[in-house]
Amino acid sequence: MQIGIVGLGRMGGNMATRLMNDGHEVFGFDPSPDTLAELEARGGTGKTSLADLVEALDTPRTVWVMVPAGDITQSTVDELSDHMSSGDTLIDGGNSNYKESIRRANELAEKGIDMLDSGTSGGIWGLENGYCLTIGGNRAAYERNLPIFKTLAPPESDGNLYVGPSGSGHYVKMIHNGIEYGMMQAFAEGLELLEAKSDFNLDLAAICENWRYGSVIRSWLLDLTADELKEDPGLDALSSYVEDSGEGRWTVDASVELAVPAPVITAALQMRFRSRQDNPIGGRALAAMRNAFGGHSVRRAP
Amino acid sequence: MQIGIVGLGRMGGNMATRLMNDGHEVFGFDPSPDTLAELEARGGTGKTSLADLVEALDTPRTVWVMVPAGDITQSTVDELSDHMSSGDTLIDGGNSNYKESIRRANELAEKGIDMLDSGTSGGIWGLENGYCLTIGGNRAAYERNLPIFKTLAPPESDGNLYVGPSGSGHYVKMIHNGIEYGMMQAFAEGLELLEAKSDFNLDLAAICENWRYGSVIRSWLLDLTADELKEDPGLDALSSYVEDSGEGRWTVDASVELAVPAPVITAALQMRFRSRQDNPIGGRALAAMRNAFGGHSVRRAP
Repeated sequence: MQIGIVGLGRMGGNMATRLMNDGHEVFGFDPSPDTLAELEARGGTGKTSLADLVEALDTPRTVWVMVPAGDITQSTVDELSDHMSSGDTLIDGGNSNYKESIRRANELAEKGIDMLDSGTSGGIWGLENGYCLTIGGNRAAYERNLPIFKTLAPPESDGNLYVGPSGSGHYVKMIHNGIEYGMMQAFAEGLELLEAKSDFNLDLAAICENWRYGSVIRSWLLDLTADELKEDPGLDALSSYVEDSGEGRWTVDASVELAVPAPVITAALQMRFRSRQDNPIGGRALAAMRNAFGGHSVRRAP
Repeated sequence: MQIGIVGLGRMGGNMATRLMNDGHEVFGFDPSPDTLAELEARGGTGKTSLADLVEALDTPRTVWVMVPAGDITQSTVDELSDHMSSGDTLIDGGNSNYKESIRRANELAEKGIDMLDSGTSGGIWGLENGYCLTIGGNRAAYERNLPIFKTLAPPESDGNLYVGPSGSGHYVKMIHNGIEYGMMQAFAEGLELLEAKSDFNLDLAAICENWRYGSVIRSWLLDLTADELKEDPGLDALSSYVEDSGEGRWTVDASVELAVPAPVITAALQMRFRSRQDNPIGGRALAAMRNAFGGHSVRRAP
């Protein structure tokens, strides 16, 4: 079927390619002329404004928004909704906060536009493997756009991608990412404990490769970790500074709001915060207190 | 090649079968006559004492011990070593504490017996998929027994199972289990947060099935969880009481001993402890304090 895609970066660009490879007709908007040229080279049609993009599509239209969560998503949805008409579908495939997705869906519903929120996982591997989609919103709009979703998702998922009302697609994706934080931190701690046992002189790359087969912890994250360790056995090329991009925080927010214990996901998020601190005041305060009450030795600032 | 196996339970019995299926000659000891009869029905030779088992094997012998960690492993190793000779190999495939494995290997070395410690993962699925083995000890003894290890391990591991000196095989298995605790708890928290968001009325079984394809958290543990949820969508047949079997505790011990932070693995272990408490004094003390300083309402014991 026909689809407009807004944002042709790493995710949106690959999704456009996967859709075109399966016979869909893709119109794309991106602020970069080079990116639009690349889309056209692969068989798509580039448009230089959101108004032109909407104009080019037959009604009822489907526009997939794949831009960073927050202000850019908001302004894109606002501008699109000015041009789109009743009966159209707007899909937010980014990592928006599910509460904002509920609000936007309600606002668009007043204009008769269906908004679907699609949690979209798979990163740069999605082009080949397919994207794990969890979709919330009006079920009829989901059914109408099923050919798009079936192309984007891995064939094994068999098109079972609808999870519930507006916001639920992004909520489920948020929880997915929270689980991901916990899993990643569990592996990180295990690797540290392997390396720290220096009398065994363990080969982390070989152990991760070994664990990939038959172990209880075999997983895609382990596959990736084993590959990275093969390339760089001590991961010496990297700094241990770790960013977070919102969904871990929102998962912890949900734990607080719902009063559901989530100590592992919370600790994983806190460890990322700690990874970004250099000589923090909290640690200096601990050293000061130990020195003050016990005369314990401290390290002076250099 | 020829091998003696001590302990033909869920793990040892399946390993005997996998070895015999690949042409190895298996002699087995188990206290249960029925279990020995089953082994013989599958083509093995049952022996009713450890002395008879050792006697039946050609030198240099290989005996695989697959019994619960602790006292039973100790008494089995002690008795076997009284009958075995210099040049023989004793393999402890159980979940022994790695420090005990180092001590036992040193004691057996005095008699010229090589002890290998093999971390063995794969549970009841190992018969079909192979066992993830991480093996520590004398490298020559490992090489000598490689045909056994290659049969037991999944073919994809390509026989790269040796990890280092005595104790390291069980240390690596211990860390594997620690990571497993963290991963399991991350999934557990995610599932609770899905269910608690009751206005979305989410179908946990469908979501876990969806996540199996293309997501970042796809893993064998997710496959198992999805299967369990398909059978029993609310897991209503189970109690949330969760045991632990030592290796999670030892991983946390290692974190303390090596002063390496492991907050996620530690929290996962603590949550298992909490799952086994019913109305604990700690919680009652918290309620008492809140009532005492703030007049907060409390729940009285029934």
